[in-house]
Amino acid sequence: MPTITLITDFGLQDGHVGAMKGVMHTIAPNATLVDISHHIPPQDIQHGGFVLMTAYSFWSVDTIHCIVVDPGVGTGRRAVAVKTSHGIFVAPDNGVLSYVLAREQAIAVVSLTNPAFWHQPVSNVFHGRDIFGPAAAYLSTGISLAEMGDKIAPTELITMNVPAPQRHSDGHVTAHIQHIDGFGNCTTDVPGDWVRAGEHWSVHIGDQVIESIDQTFGDVAEGGLVALVDSTDFVAVAVRNGSAARSLGLSIGDPVQLFPKSWSASQPMLSVPG
Amino acid sequence: MPTITLITDFGLQDGHVGAMKGVMHTIAPNATLVDISHHIPPQDIQHGGFVLMTAYSFWSVDTIHCIVVDPGVGTGRRAVAVKTSHGIFVAPDNGVLSYVLAREQAIAVVSLTNPAFWHQPVSNVFHGRDIFGPAAAYLSTGISLAEMGDKIAPTELITMNVPAPQRHSDGHVTAHIQHIDGFGNCTTDVPGDWVRAGEHWSVHIGDQVIESIDQTFGDVAEGGLVALVDSTDFVAVAVRNGSAARSLGLSIGDPVQLFPKSWSASQPMLSVPG
Amino acid sequence: MPTITLITDFGLQDGHVGAMKGVMHTIAPNATLVDISHHIPPQDIQHGGFVLMTAYSFWSVDTIHCIVVDPGVGTGRRAVAVKTSHGIFVAPDNGVLSYVLAREQAIAVVSLTNPAFWHQPVSNVFHGRDIFGPAAAYLSTGISLAEMGDKIAPTELITMNVPAPQRHSDGHVTAHIQHIDGFGNCTTDVPGDWVRAGEHWSVHIGDQVIESIDQTFGDVAEGGLVALVDSTDFVAVAVRNGSAARSLGLSIGDPVQLFPKSWSASQPMLSVPG
Repeated sequence: MPTITLITDFGLQDGHVGAMKGVMHTIAPNATLVDISHHIPPQDIQHGGFVLMTAYSFWSVDTIHCIVVDPGVGTGRRAVAVKTSHGIFVAPDNGVLSYVLAREQAIAVVSLTNPAFWHQPVSNVFHGRDIFGPAAAYLSTGISLAEMGDKIAPTELITMNVPAPQRHSDGHVTAHIQHIDGFGNCTTDVPGDWVRAGEHWSVHIGDQVIESIDQTFGDVAEGGLVALVDSTDFVAVAVRNGSAARSLGLSIGDPVQLFPKSWSASQPMLSVPG
Repeated sequence: MPTITLITDFGLQDGHVGAMKGVMHTIAPNATLVDISHHIPPQDIQHGGFVLMTAYSFWSVDTIHCIVVDPGVGTGRRAVAVKTSHGIFVAPDNGVLSYVLAREQAIAVVSLTNPAFWHQPVSNVFHGRDIFGPAAAYLSTGISLAEMGDKIAPTELITMNVPAPQRHSDGHVTAHIQHIDGFGNCTTDVPGDWVRAGEHWSVHIGDQVIESIDQTFGDVAEGGLVALVDSTDFVAVAVRNGSAARSLGLSIGDPVQLFPKSWSASQPMLSVPG
Repeated sequence: MPTITLITDFGLQDGHVGAMKGVMHTIAPNATLVDISHHIPPQDIQHGGFVLMTAYSFWSVDTIHCIVVDPGVGTGRRAVAVKTSHGIFVAPDNGVLSYVLAREQAIAVVSLTNPAFWHQPVSNVFHGRDIFGPAAAYLSTGISLAEMGDKIAPTELITMNVPAPQRHSDGHVTAHIQHIDGFGNCTTDVPGDWVRAGEHWSVHIGDQVIESIDQTFGDVAEGGLVALVDSTDFVAVAVRNGSAARSLGLSIGDPVQLFPKSWSASQPMLSVPG
């Protein structure tokens, strides 16, 4: 029996998650339900998509991931299930799967239109309980994707702009903070691979310059600012045993620049945009 | 083996929940323990009872629900287990089951007086770990309700005043906010059935008038105020992708009024109390 | 198949816990993973160690406890597994096990140096996912401690100063607040046994004197200050249905004094340090 993971923005102070799990458990009593997070900021599709991306690949390939960050609930937005070679993803078709679909190819996609697999009556404001959760639960019992609704082309899926860094012809990189975790560590959108080979880099963020990309927090003094490749395999900026977000006043989307050391040797720093 | 759900006000920053689950797991290693919420505001019996009401009915009828919001721990208040046709409820006898007992008939009630089913030594301040959790765990292993303690009459159970709306002879309804969820959506105590049929309604809340009861958040513009029947099947007031509680400064217990459209046509608005 | 409990400071708004559980579930699909807490304050070894101490003993003796509060991740600090007669503890060797090791004898200790039981590639900043979680999961499948790495002597383990009270020759006790729970109850480091027998005590905390140690919250009026032996079996100071930490402005480490009633009769109160 496959595992079903859950990511929502419901929080845990209400009965929402408990109701959704009750419906799922009733459909699939032997399924293992695992919470990834119910603390996605309300309606924050980008945050939910990022958290999914950082977790799904560590689960076995038969896992069903159910993601409900759904500001368009009850409108015309589709509910979908997307089969990939690394799991099935059940979610609103609002871009929340964009991060995953930048890494995994959609093998089959259905719109969850078959009311036989909905929890009745369907609330207009809680498809987590009445459509997404039931779909994930039925899939775990062996119901095929094809039975759940109308097949659609992967290209029809709504995509969200996933933040992306730019590598310029002179070698420097302009990038963004794409996630801030609970420690206040700020993850940029620069893949670890870009900085692992050969070249040494400095990182410019806010009004700070970090002169190198280090291996771990302990490479700097307590409270010191450090750039490193984090566990999500992106370049991140952190304060050792502190919060970089708070210390530097950083937010999602803030600009970050990386300069190869060779660059800074050959070019005047004045040309660096602020 | 039945499932045991948990609702407490313990929070998750301490060892309280972990200790309680350890005791339960030791008694009933094969029981599935599911967290509904451990984030009920401290000692808030009304909030805990409401969350239970919005979740229990989605679980199978053999589920055991263990609710520990227990400001009277260690005093003379009883600890009880209540059997209904939709699950067994284990809780302090302080009114936290009132919402459920307004919907489900108590078939049998016992006071959990049999020390054979307590975790020893019993702390004076943590009956979740030492009385309620063990009772739920033993019940899941097949111990009968009758063995757990003294039978009492359902009418002896303490009840809490569950907020209730009033339908006036002229057709208008005075009601209250009975719950505010993590999104800031404000659930009133007006059942969905009261507004589903025929009549159109306006909703008066704070200094705002909402001219209709809509189907879903998306029926109004981003940031707009909307009244709808929410997933708990009560009339609610929400801000689309925002927080009605914050925008309107609303709290639990605040008054809400509903006026049928025919009413407002025939009566001067001046007569509406502020 | 034994249970694995988890204590971390990761929070639940990110993918960290979900990634760690995915790795563990892939290694040990039949293990039961139980969350004790993911809300330890960031890098707070003392808080994490205390929470572990208040929870582990309620689990069966074959349970594996995985604790990741790890400010030294990626530095030279060891990762260890410690076998006791009441469970196996997997954690960074940074003192987080000190509270437990004050109660349980380490029967065997290994440094988790065998890369065969790591998740590859190992991040420099997330050993929860790549070393501790996998170790706990492999142990649950029956891999022996000896296979996981180099044996070390229990005396080599790093220990943290566990707060301890002092009993003075004149009978009075100087102590500290060692934990503040989610209710705002303040747990001192004075064991319940010190105050249970015979003698009556007064408790001096902040600018307050509590004249007796009571049985439960309900022994004082709503909002009243009460001293009692709490569920962790230490003397605690609480406000009935309120927060002692907030009311009295208390913090971890703050001094507390206990005076036997006989003492206060024979000595001038002026000699009590402020």
